[in-house]
Amino acid sequence: MGHARDIEDLIDLMARLPGLGPRSARRAVLMLLKKRGPLMAPLAQAMAHVALTAKDCTRCGNIGTTDICPICADDRRATGEICVVEDVADLWAMERTGAFKGRYHVLGGTLSALDAVGPEDLRIPRLVARVAEEGLREVILALNLTVDGQTTAHYIADVLEGSGVQVTSLAQGVPVGGELDYLDDGTIGAALRARKRF
Amino acid sequence: MGHARDIEDLIDLMARLPGLGPRSARRAVLMLLKKRGPLMAPLAQAMAHVALTAKDCTRCGNIGTTDICPICADDRRATGEICVVEDVADLWAMERTGAFKGRYHVLGGTLSALDAVGPEDLRIPRLVARVAEEGLREVILALNLTVDGQTTAHYIADVLEGSGVQVTSLAQGVPVGGELDYLDDGTIGAALRARKRF
Repeated sequence: MGHARDIEDLIDLMARLPGLGPRSARRAVLMLLKKRGPLMAPLAQAMAHVALTAKDCTRCGNIGTTDICPICADDRRATGEICVVEDVADLWAMERTGAFKGRYHVLGGTLSALDAVGPEDLRIPRLVARVAEEGLREVILALNLTVDGQTTAHYIADVLEGSGVQVTSLAQGVPVGGELDYLDDGTIGAALRARKRF
Repeated sequence: MGHARDIEDLIDLMARLPGLGPRSARRAVLMLLKKRGPLMAPLAQAMAHVALTAKDCTRCGNIGTTDICPICADDRRATGEICVVEDVADLWAMERTGAFKGRYHVLGGTLSALDAVGPEDLRIPRLVARVAEEGLREVILALNLTVDGQTTAHYIADVLEGSGVQVTSLAQGVPVGGELDYLDDGTIGAALRARKRF
């Protein structure tokens, strides 16, 4: 390929990132090679640092660089309610909205018979323990509206039945900016069934 | 944002790569965080290594990890002809075709009155020196068919006039797989003027 084996290896590793293929990985590496001082060295250092220090929050499963993540450690967060998400990406998405002031619980996936993922493979036992330990009032299920996500939501609701905590889930309906003509039938049907007084 | 400052910094740096925006940088970092051992640590290490060892070939300007790049150091490459390209990316593109067996000369850009890039800012004096030193038969100009690229090509042809070396350039015409209906007028015109016996 006309360049050193080391550079080739770097391109191969970069190409494994989501959103980058072999071609764009090559382009990214070439750009890094041209900005060795201002970008490549700091990026390599930041990545090595995070790879070394990143850890899952022992309480909620969020990724941070401390045993207890910034959200769990933040005294200003509302107590009494936690939002259950499948994945750290979902937690970040919720946080970006700024709409939720409580704490989180990251399951780390969904139940899946096909992939042999059971409750003990996720942080479901930990969730049940937290409900009791933290005296929670409400558990908000913010799981994806996929089959696996909803199966998991139903399972959690069942498990928490009788624990005294209120289990809620995100509203279903027409997304903001959504046009009926472009929405799938399931969404329109759900929005119609959940219609409310104008 | 619910995650540590270090992770935020890493996302910001990743977002500066071509082909990645803030959103896809976040996705990439999240994926790296999940594959800290198998992907993130090796990637950080490979990047740090290349950032430290990468250097421009003193002869042709290609990027490698040695003073003389693998192509210049390869005895099996044809001598007597070099291919002049604007950028290392173009050299890599040429190499991928496998069609050229000689060595290269990377200019490092194009002449540009607007950006105040003159011949001494590029590797043009070095090219002139190589023509004499290496007793070259042919200099193939593989510069982009942009205004700046072609200005640079004409300048180089002028400079090498009288040095006894043959200066050639890539053929212009319809690209392989090209459909006339989708080609610009300039390309069709150039292909017509350069028509050849079928």
